[in-house]
Amino acid sequence: MATPGSGVDGPSDSPTLGHIREAAARLAGVAVRTPIVTNAALDALVGASVLVKPECLQRVGAFKFRGAYNALARLRESGETRGVLAYSSGNHAQAIALAASMLAIQAVIVMPSDAPRTKLARTREYLQAAPPGSEVVVYDRSVESREALGARLADERGLTIIPPYDHPDVIAGQGTAALELIDDAGPLDALFVCVGGGGLISGCAVAAASLSPGCRVIGVEPEAGDDATRSFRSGVLQTIENPRTICDGARTPYLGRYTFPLIRRYVADMITVSDAQVAAAMAWGIDRLKLLLEPTGALGLAGLFETARTNPASIAGKRVGVVLSGGNVDLDALPDLLAMAAPDPQS
Amino acid sequence: MATPGSGVDGPSDSPTLGHIREAAARLAGVAVRTPIVTNAALDALVGASVLVKPECLQRVGAFKFRGAYNALARLRESGETRGVLAYSSGNHAQAIALAASMLAIQAVIVMPSDAPRTKLARTREYLQAAPPGSEVVVYDRSVESREALGARLADERGLTIIPPYDHPDVIAGQGTAALELIDDAGPLDALFVCVGGGGLISGCAVAAASLSPGCRVIGVEPEAGDDATRSFRSGVLQTIENPRTICDGARTPYLGRYTFPLIRRYVADMITVSDAQVAAAMAWGIDRLKLLLEPTGALGLAGLFETARTNPASIAGKRVGVVLSGGNVDLDALPDLLAMAAPDPQS
Repeated sequence: MATPGSGVDGPSDSPTLGHIREAAARLAGVAVRTPIVTNAALDALVGASVLVKPECLQRVGAFKFRGAYNALARLRESGETRGVLAYSSGNHAQAIALAASMLAIQAVIVMPSDAPRTKLARTREYLQAAPPGSEVVVYDRSVESREALGARLADERGLTIIPPYDHPDVIAGQGTAALELIDDAGPLDALFVCVGGGGLISGCAVAAASLSPGCRVIGVEPEAGDDATRSFRSGVLQTIENPRTICDGARTPYLGRYTFPLIRRYVADMITVSDAQVAAAMAWGIDRLKLLLEPTGALGLAGLFETARTNPASIAGKRVGVVLSGGNVDLDALPDLLAMAAPDPQS
Repeated sequence: MATPGSGVDGPSDSPTLGHIREAAARLAGVAVRTPIVTNAALDALVGASVLVKPECLQRVGAFKFRGAYNALARLRESGETRGVLAYSSGNHAQAIALAASMLAIQAVIVMPSDAPRTKLARTREYLQAAPPGSEVVVYDRSVESREALGARLADERGLTIIPPYDHPDVIAGQGTAALELIDDAGPLDALFVCVGGGGLISGCAVAAASLSPGCRVIGVEPEAGDDATRSFRSGVLQTIENPRTICDGARTPYLGRYTFPLIRRYVADMITVSDAQVAAAMAWGIDRLKLLLEPTGALGLAGLFETARTNPASIAGKRVGVVLSGGNVDLDALPDLLAMAAPDPQS
């Protein structure tokens, strides 16, 4: 784990526990305070006491609502009257669309043409209640950069960009997931969190560092998109364009200006899992936890299973949190996804 | 609603709120206190404030664990040392198997050969930790009566029969679902509960009658197996053998000696829904609530949708509870089940 003074502290407005508590106050009564789910079969399988935070039960079906609403609510508080622009593989898009409609802020959402149908359809649905000028703009991931397209549209239309992860208010909002988990379940020995651009794990790691100082926060990434793991290990930002993985929420090409330093400072370790392991964890989670998970939503569970297999002593008898980040998967895509599963969720 | 004195009060040892509170004490720390799930899209769809009690998150994936554990724990307390016998289409079987292994009581479980594979496999799995002599006995629903077979085996082997619903300790255990829901969410205006043999709704209706006196408890049955609805309306016990419905947990042929009087006395109304409506509610619940539901587990939601369609004023703006009773469905059977869905969950 990097320590203060290692030159990776990040921007001066990097989020703190105070910002996460402010975000929690904004989200009270607006976001779902997702329950803690426990499961005796899971405990027996991994040899630990597992506390599951099912963000698939969050509004829009993913943790992303926390950060999106917090960022837009802060814009509202600051008297900012321009609309917003967001680019996203799906869940941030839905989250911004819903938050914008709730706060009556115009929103333009840039989404890849191959985003899951459900995510495209729901984003359009949420935007129906947003102010005029709100729309989804679809682009082709293979020919355009969403950042470039987003920047151009924001400039033309006078919109404020709310990036999907690299923004202090977004990170602070995501951190409320760990804040609630530790508030409700008590201190943890370890916490498994998926990593795409690192917004969720950054916020959760900042919260855990203060509220449960002994907690080892472990990031879990798909092995085809292991840029964050390699960045974490080398200390130098690594990039992967369009990684081929079923985890559509973790195809982000690199960590951010805020998230990379926070991860280096507050995350204990990073691990990777194969798509077959992700599919097996999805199947296990749906079949046994009875929670619908999208591939990225099962990354934390896949990481827990991988750890139980390769390093069981590190979690044996301990209190282990797992954030299941989302459940937005097309039901008709489910059989093919589950068919990719490794035969044993721990293999 | 039948009133006291209408001649339908049932046996003198019929469960009361006191028995349900005793059951809750036995289940504390043993059963999952399932969370309350809320969903803004559901509220918008039906025009009410909906409090969902997801018993798919219960141990063994269904509410049945509550009643089974309560009944076996009472046997243990009474010093009863014989083993137990249970017959069940699946969830009661798993529940007795798990409770028996936890309490070290021998258990013989009689199950139909066409029970969902998952339910058969899990029952055998749970029994592995139960005392010697414990086993699953499979029978053919088309040629044998489970009651007759169960009675014969119990007699031969000296076992105490724990029926799946018509038993005061089982009913009291099931009633803890409503006890928790009302404790956690406050008084309700209505509560939708599935009806097979009536154990869950009987216990829930007894709890609601005391804890939330204005709450109208509504039973929901598959229309192909509408014996309880016709019994409720006519006041005379009606029977249906082997009804053809996807709701394998609600193929029970008749209400019981305990459950029929309790339903007549404490349940406000009964409605029926088609299998297509059940499948649509399952699909909606999985897709939007992100909870895996078996067909019977979606009956309460299907009943809520049916009520929103045919009698919206009865729930408009009200606080409505829905018990989702279980989530034990074979994942490879899911596509065919969901394909049966009516196009609109409210149609």
